[in-house]
Amino acid sequence: MPTDLKIRWIGAIAAAGMPEIEVGSFVPAKVIPAMADTGEVVRAVRDLPCVIVALAPNLKGAQLAADAGANRVTIPVSVSEGHSRANTNRTTAEAVAEVRRIVDWARADGGRIEVEAACSTAFGCSIDGTVTTERVVSVAAGLAEAGADLIALADTVGYAHPAQIREVVRAVRSAVGDRLEGLHLHDTMGLGLANALAGLEEGIRSFDASLAGLGGCPYAPGASGNIVTEDLVFMLESMGFSTGIDLERLVAARAYLQEGLPDEPRHGGVARAGLPRTFKAAA
Amino acid sequence: MPTDLKIRWIGAIAAAGMPEIEVGSFVPAKVIPAMADTGEVVRAVRDLPCVIVALAPNLKGAQLAADAGANRVTIPVSVSEGHSRANTNRTTAEAVAEVRRIVDWARADGGRIEVEAACSTAFGCSIDGTVTTERVVSVAAGLAEAGADLIALADTVGYAHPAQIREVVRAVRSAVGDRLEGLHLHDTMGLGLANALAGLEEGIRSFDASLAGLGGCPYAPGASGNIVTEDLVFMLESMGFSTGIDLERLVAARAYLQEGLPDEPRHGGVARAGLPRTFKAAA
Repeated sequence: MPTDLKIRWIGAIAAAGMPEIEVGSFVPAKVIPAMADTGEVVRAVRDLPCVIVALAPNLKGAQLAADAGANRVTIPVSVSEGHSRANTNRTTAEAVAEVRRIVDWARADGGRIEVEAACSTAFGCSIDGTVTTERVVSVAAGLAEAGADLIALADTVGYAHPAQIREVVRAVRSAVGDRLEGLHLHDTMGLGLANALAGLEEGIRSFDASLAGLGGCPYAPGASGNIVTEDLVFMLESMGFSTGIDLERLVAARAYLQEGLPDEPRHGGVARAGLPRTFKAAA
Repeated sequence: MPTDLKIRWIGAIAAAGMPEIEVGSFVPAKVIPAMADTGEVVRAVRDLPCVIVALAPNLKGAQLAADAGANRVTIPVSVSEGHSRANTNRTTAEAVAEVRRIVDWARADGGRIEVEAACSTAFGCSIDGTVTTERVVSVAAGLAEAGADLIALADTVGYAHPAQIREVVRAVRSAVGDRLEGLHLHDTMGLGLANALAGLEEGIRSFDASLAGLGGCPYAPGASGNIVTEDLVFMLESMGFSTGIDLERLVAARAYLQEGLPDEPRHGGVARAGLPRTFKAAA
């Protein structure tokens, strides 16, 4: 997707009222060429009235994110060793240590940027298989001890089920308290919104999602992308949770995706069927 | 789909362990030509080791279902007047009266067939809009009073959200007790499994679903079909609810659908992505 279109697309999502947008990754261009323009994108959108988040795998990426003007950097830390090695060529302990370095730098730097650590493969791994709740708690506790401002739990490969979401959220919250902020869910098995509901009912109020369910995971064959933002907002608003998001404007922002990535499948019930005539946004 | 293929398809689903299968509708062939062979289908599958259900809109259809050997007949009763008139050219009260006639006949007939009444549009209507919980309770209570053995709640047009599922299930159960048996859910807005989860947590243990999410509703533009059976079974088994269903054999039964209805979209995460390596069926 051309840089200019990315910027207009992010602007349209922000104008719909989205409170936070993860706009790109500060990873080496040779690893993900599509993210080579993330610095330029962040610079262009930094003054939008929403939290601008960028992914960074290491201190250098976090520094680039802060210099570009991102409000928050999110650092993936794979709970399973197999995914950690495959994805970032380091152990989980090394990733936690990198978060500590980033936190120490961010504090010394004066707090320009907030540091979020995302526990990848927290609900299972396509390489290592089962990931125990104890292991997730241990990694999350290590990240809290390292000083991460926020901790998220990611169902990277889309294996989670609602009872597991409840169990892991409760256990991690017992260990790290309200630093547990969000859930990152994929819709691989069709359970994405059911998992979001379980998280919501456990008190989670921040969810990663993507417009039209864009995305996937190179380590989860057949995986679809994140849960569909539009459908998540529909569920939350219908249930009385005000998101501040204008659903019709959000659906309209799919046009940028269609323009820039015409061959990517676009998912979502709200966009396909239209809003029910009974729909009322939460007060 | 040719009759022979329908029969083999139903056999494959039964062999996967499905406890109940709704195999067709006893409606006039001129209304739904694809259902003209329902009598022949029921006769062919009546001895399978599962509950064979057929839809019937009236006493004549219920008698045909019983004569063919169905174990249960399900009678749709639209809670909203607009849907009742559009779908069956009668009022809701007339539909409830028809259920009473069917119950009276079934009892006089010696109980060959069980009578289920399905409250259509119980969570909203594409014609009448909002359907109040009070109205659903009133219709369900009327059906219980008419003697229906089982009562189901149907989100016919896919407007329901999880909080509404909880509210309506609780209210209807207060009125009719354990005669409230099941939920019939569509995935129109992508909330189908989230709604199933809400129902499950309210104690519902019977869910209508369709293989590959086949189906739709002529009164819900853009509506997809029912929730995807395979993904529902995956969610239930993952959460520890034993369904008795062999998920791999169930997924394999999609081949009949592909053969008989090749142009129908086939939905479902489990079929697309394959079962997670962490999956264990419930004990």
